[in-house]
Amino acid sequence: MFSMAFAAMVPHHAAIVIGDRIMSDHKPLHFVTLLGSLRKASYHGAVVRALPTLAPDDVTIEPLGSVGDFPLYNADIQAVGFPAAVLAMGEAIAKADGVIIVTPEYNYSVPGVLKNALDWLSRLPTQPFAGKPTVIQTGSPGLVGGARAQYHLRQSLVFLDATVMNKPEVMISQIMTKVDAATGQLTDEATRTFISTQLTAFASFARR
Amino acid sequence: MFSMAFAAMVPHHAAIVIGDRIMSDHKPLHFVTLLGSLRKASYHGAVVRALPTLAPDDVTIEPLGSVGDFPLYNADIQAVGFPAAVLAMGEAIAKADGVIIVTPEYNYSVPGVLKNALDWLSRLPTQPFAGKPTVIQTGSPGLVGGARAQYHLRQSLVFLDATVMNKPEVMISQIMTKVDAATGQLTDEATRTFISTQLTAFASFARR
Amino acid sequence: MFSMAFAAMVPHHAAIVIGDRIMSDHKPLHFVTLLGSLRKASYHGAVVRALPTLAPDDVTIEPLGSVGDFPLYNADIQAVGFPAAVLAMGEAIAKADGVIIVTPEYNYSVPGVLKNALDWLSRLPTQPFAGKPTVIQTGSPGLVGGARAQYHLRQSLVFLDATVMNKPEVMISQIMTKVDAATGQLTDEATRTFISTQLTAFASFARR
Amino acid sequence: MFSMAFAAMVPHHAAIVIGDRIMSDHKPLHFVTLLGSLRKASYHGAVVRALPTLAPDDVTIEPLGSVGDFPLYNADIQAVGFPAAVLAMGEAIAKADGVIIVTPEYNYSVPGVLKNALDWLSRLPTQPFAGKPTVIQTGSPGLVGGARAQYHLRQSLVFLDATVMNKPEVMISQIMTKVDAATGQLTDEATRTFISTQLTAFASFARR
Repeated sequence: MFSMAFAAMVPHHAAIVIGDRIMSDHKPLHFVTLLGSLRKASYHGAVVRALPTLAPDDVTIEPLGSVGDFPLYNADIQAVGFPAAVLAMGEAIAKADGVIIVTPEYNYSVPGVLKNALDWLSRLPTQPFAGKPTVIQTGSPGLVGGARAQYHLRQSLVFLDATVMNKPEVMISQIMTKVDAATGQLTDEATRTFISTQLTAFASFARR
Repeated sequence: MFSMAFAAMVPHHAAIVIGDRIMSDHKPLHFVTLLGSLRKASYHGAVVRALPTLAPDDVTIEPLGSVGDFPLYNADIQAVGFPAAVLAMGEAIAKADGVIIVTPEYNYSVPGVLKNALDWLSRLPTQPFAGKPTVIQTGSPGLVGGARAQYHLRQSLVFLDATVMNKPEVMISQIMTKVDAATGQLTDEATRTFISTQLTAFASFARR
Repeated sequence: MFSMAFAAMVPHHAAIVIGDRIMSDHKPLHFVTLLGSLRKASYHGAVVRALPTLAPDDVTIEPLGSVGDFPLYNADIQAVGFPAAVLAMGEAIAKADGVIIVTPEYNYSVPGVLKNALDWLSRLPTQPFAGKPTVIQTGSPGLVGGARAQYHLRQSLVFLDATVMNKPEVMISQIMTKVDAATGQLTDEATRTFISTQLTAFASFARR
Repeated sequence: MFSMAFAAMVPHHAAIVIGDRIMSDHKPLHFVTLLGSLRKASYHGAVVRALPTLAPDDVTIEPLGSVGDFPLYNADIQAVGFPAAVLAMGEAIAKADGVIIVTPEYNYSVPGVLKNALDWLSRLPTQPFAGKPTVIQTGSPGLVGGARAQYHLRQSLVFLDATVMNKPEVMISQIMTKVDAATGQLTDEATRTFISTQLTAFASFARR
């Protein structure tokens, strides 16, 4: 019982770890979403919009700016100064408790527009992914659900030293059947439930 | 000897295959280079500029336009019409006898700017990489020489149905020591020789 | 029309290539299958058994010996002499017109038992995969159909210098629903048709 | 100061986390090594033997049994019962505070003998890699140092839900020049120092 008393004595957000047990006062978490598609009616955009409603209590989720606001990476531009959109996204990631990357797969890999954003962010003096809890969600029109993009993205995230959650993995097959094209809402209940499960796991992961 | 006589009868560029033997009139080849870096003083740009001088006889090598002229891929832009730079590069690849991709590795993978170009080209009504002989050259400041980018690129090229040469692989380690920064020339003799060997192999590969 | 007359003059199995056209007398082909599972009631074994009935005319398909007959790779054993099973499989591959690798995915990659076989075969004085037409078929209990194993396998096959067909790719999702457990037959018609399509493409690929 | 007093009250190995600060009583750690080569004079075996001398204080490192004691994975054998060597290795990993995988690269990927061991271990009722701190060391005769094997191994470790350290990565290029063939000792000072740096980072990683 002393742990409760002790918790009252220490600053907000403290966790006391004894052996393998973690007693937490459920620190509120703020996650940000990074979307790998620029299409207005993007199915993955529909997923991003659904995330706040699928998050567990005490978790807020907010979209980062668009990767479409970044120029193509060029070290000569960087030498003059980082674009404002890059700096802003870097700061938003740095302040967040975790990053949720939601992306289609293009040509069996990560979309160029998303990789271009990572290439910019990776050069920031304070590289924002270092040690940052990160999780991936992909989808595709076929059955594979973007799996090929996930492991390429993970390889880049090793270099960026992100703390990427292993499981559960969200790979949304036949994504166009799971979004209502008229309203742009992620309507498939099984998908919503599974994403919700991943977000709950990610909240625990980010609190460790 | 009839093969020579026969060759005279058939259209230019014919090859006669009998069993495993190939008798060729050494069709002249035209290769194009696709550069994955936008930096003006790019080391990989120095490699691209050196290639024509390292090619075997009967092989010309010409740079494609810059991937920096492409917008970030967006299906909404595509719906309005492919950008002129994308169409032009697609046509240049379609007419070429082979493509040489020369690229740095960013964040353990293909640079976003190069992947973005592939994402655009892959959507062209006549996808230009289909069946196209293709070879890869990477470099890096460290010892690994861009190897990690090569296999991610190969995975995309499976989807694009390119005919990618396996060996020899060009991975230029410590690339900054192999280019003269003052003149922007690829000066390292061992690297020049090895690239020349790859280009000779690639010419045979493209003639098959 | 002279090409037909000419064809009559040349040895069996000649192909005359003029420009892009290939006229072939449909050389009979002999393919061998390499199975990546040792389980007696293997679903992938059912696929291997079905292949001869799904092949196009003039194509015979025969299973290689079991990868279960190889010892774990050890260079000290190799120094004494290659095991007979390794030598026999190497010769069978060398004589074949193409190799069909049929394998499950274990732990998001190539099964150790299959990779072990490749590790042995790769050390043979005449490495049998060099230039050998090769195609991949994977399956899995889930939706991804073994896709993750395919690209790891392709990376090894780059080193082995195999000539691997890009498309169509066979990835059998929910493979247990496509095999009749009682008879061990691949019964799913859509899967049979798709495999047949791949085999027809592979025959053309191997004849090039 | 109360944290020290508190530490005295709690069981051994407690860590008290307040905000971002970690105060640790430097729990002793026990790591185990998993070697991916069976050759008696293996260069990677020399690395494994050197690790205990390169570890930080309070860290002991002990080799696991040989992956050469495992049969080729076969679900039919598993159905009868896990081999004793598999059970023993699974228990040793489960009890350890972390796993150090030391392996060559074969055919641009993970050696079959190592993958076979993972395939067995992955089927144990209590899968021992789940949540287990894990780090990778590879080497090769060339410059790439086994990098290609590292990311394939990492992909399997995602499925196994291991907690794999990102950095620093140990890739030993030209490994035969760094081991004294006569004594079988890892003699290269730069390599020893770098490995020592990784082990220190891994001890911190495992204590989190």
